Amino acid sequence: MIREPGDADVLEWTQVPDPEPRSGEVVVEVVASAVNRADVMQRLGFYPPPKDAPPYPGLEVSGRIVALGPEVEGWSVGDEVCALLGGGGYAERVAVPAGQLLPVPKGVELVDAAGLPEVACTVWSNVFMRAGLGAGETFLVHGGGSGIGTMAIQLARASGARVLCTVGSERKAAFCRELGAEPVNYREDDFVAHGPYDVILDNMGAKYLARNVEALAPGGRLVVIGLQGGTRAELDLNALLVKRASVHATSLRARPLEEKAEIVAAVREHVWPLVESGDVRPVVDRRVPMARAAEAHRLLEDSGHIGKILLTV
Amino acid sequence: MIREPGDADVLEWTQVPDPEPRSGEVVVEVVASAVNRADVMQRLGFYPPPKDAPPYPGLEVSGRIVALGPEVEGWSVGDEVCALLGGGGYAERVAVPAGQLLPVPKGVELVDAAGLPEVACTVWSNVFMRAGLGAGETFLVHGGGSGIGTMAIQLARASGARVLCTVGSERKAAFCRELGAEPVNYREDDFVAHGPYDVILDNMGAKYLARNVEALAPGGRLVVIGLQGGTRAELDLNALLVKRASVHATSLRARPLEEKAEIVAAVREHVWPLVESGDVRPVVDRRVPMARAAEAHRLLEDSGHIGKILLTV
Repeated sequence: MIREPGDADVLEWTQVPDPEPRSGEVVVEVVASAVNRADVMQRLGFYPPPKDAPPYPGLEVSGRIVALGPEVEGWSVGDEVCALLGGGGYAERVAVPAGQLLPVPKGVELVDAAGLPEVACTVWSNVFMRAGLGAGETFLVHGGGSGIGTMAIQLARASGARVLCTVGSERKAAFCRELGAEPVNYREDDFVAHGPYDVILDNMGAKYLARNVEALAPGGRLVVIGLQGGTRAELDLNALLVKRASVHATSLRARPLEEKAEIVAAVREHVWPLVESGDVRPVVDRRVPMARAAEAHRLLEDSGHIGKILLTV
Repeated sequence: MIREPGDADVLEWTQVPDPEPRSGEVVVEVVASAVNRADVMQRLGFYPPPKDAPPYPGLEVSGRIVALGPEVEGWSVGDEVCALLGGGGYAERVAVPAGQLLPVPKGVELVDAAGLPEVACTVWSNVFMRAGLGAGETFLVHGGGSGIGTMAIQLARASGARVLCTVGSERKAAFCRELGAEPVNYREDDFVAHGPYDVILDNMGAKYLARNVEALAPGGRLVVIGLQGGTRAELDLNALLVKRASVHATSLRARPLEEKAEIVAAVREHVWPLVESGDVRPVVDRRVPMARAAEAHRLLEDSGHIGKILLTV
């Protein structure tokens, strides 16, 4: 839990009451969770959890169902699952709305499945459901080595798009190239010069807004899912208008349950088959015991990792 | 024609060569054209016509087909039509790609049909094809008394949306109320206070950007089609992200021919039946002889009109 906002050391592994499943929920015995940028924001006090979520972080888990609440169909005690959460995944047990459960894809280890729900749901809902990336289009994802980046590269490639990504190191460039992307090292090169892009998935917000708009193709869609470079910036509406382009900004966590369930169902239909066929694979940087979550947060903040950092119980 | 950019008096009614139909084009003998805000921008020198358009203004006409180029099917000499143009409608004859022709809707006078293509194509492509306004949603259009405004109000009402509009006078408020909108007089009231809106159609650009974003509902779509209030403004990406909203900016004139043809086909399928049933009617402020186009431009710039100002040959 987090008694006070602060640096990674405020994360404290402690006793909390076991959750009870409400109507439409199951309780999952957690085998692993994963670290997300939003967990760090929550730890720092910038991103309070939704009202009905536990006060401790964790947006995804994998594990086994140990209890079913009323009105849950299609799931049984003992099922191995992974799940998208509003929070509370850094725990031994968590209550989850059944609409946010996914089976563990065939061929994926139960622990590694903990790193799939957040990136799969974020990339699918934004790049495909929202921006409608199509075969033959050109796609750019910022932070190609991140959990989101490695999933976005693979899903966009599988859809028949040309894929570019920004990276901050040669090690990440090499990894993203293997996944099928053309990496652009932002420390020495300009992503605008490698455009234009039909769809851009951005985590930098204000800092990149003008250059992202500049880099869009006619009809292009910029989707902002993170504000690591600030929130307010000047928008040139004429540049947007001449290109008939659009700027979208979204988050997954605050959506109503029905929308989350709709996204999870779409991921199960469209993404899970690609994972089971091996076209898309979970990219795991390392596993860290949950009691050492502070260490995992420091690794994420240093941005040296590639893919997901998992937390194991 | 326009020899030099300038005020309305630079519009000069003069002899130009008759157009010849190229492959896929017809020549229309013009009965009427209509004045659009873009014509004023072009006259002032801010909005050069596309390369393959005549150098004089006019984005729409009605009239009769007098010649068919090669590879035109489905149209005959003598057909009464109206058409969306890249320019050149202020003339006695104009060449038009067949994909931009529409039949004159039953029950509409040939002259009045000149005022339909631009507003029908603009509203349908932006509010429905782009923003996907749905039944039960709330829609706001700025400038409810304009040609775009009067068409947007009627089409949004016909689709089952709740409709609000901004207006600058009580006369326009009364007219928009009759069309089915709830008018907000921007001189004495704040449209944000009457929101939130699922879709906003905006012609003001920078001046309204922050308040438009503030007025959007969760999942809301702002579509900017005019920049009468400037081009650059600060965008609060966090406000957009919290609402999972989007900002679109588009124009019709610069689109490739295939996209124009796709929009015109959609208008014929979805809008024309509503015009023929009387659910949507052309709103015409007045008819002005084409040789007095300067007078029509002054009327448009004074913004006292309601609906379209037509130019008759």
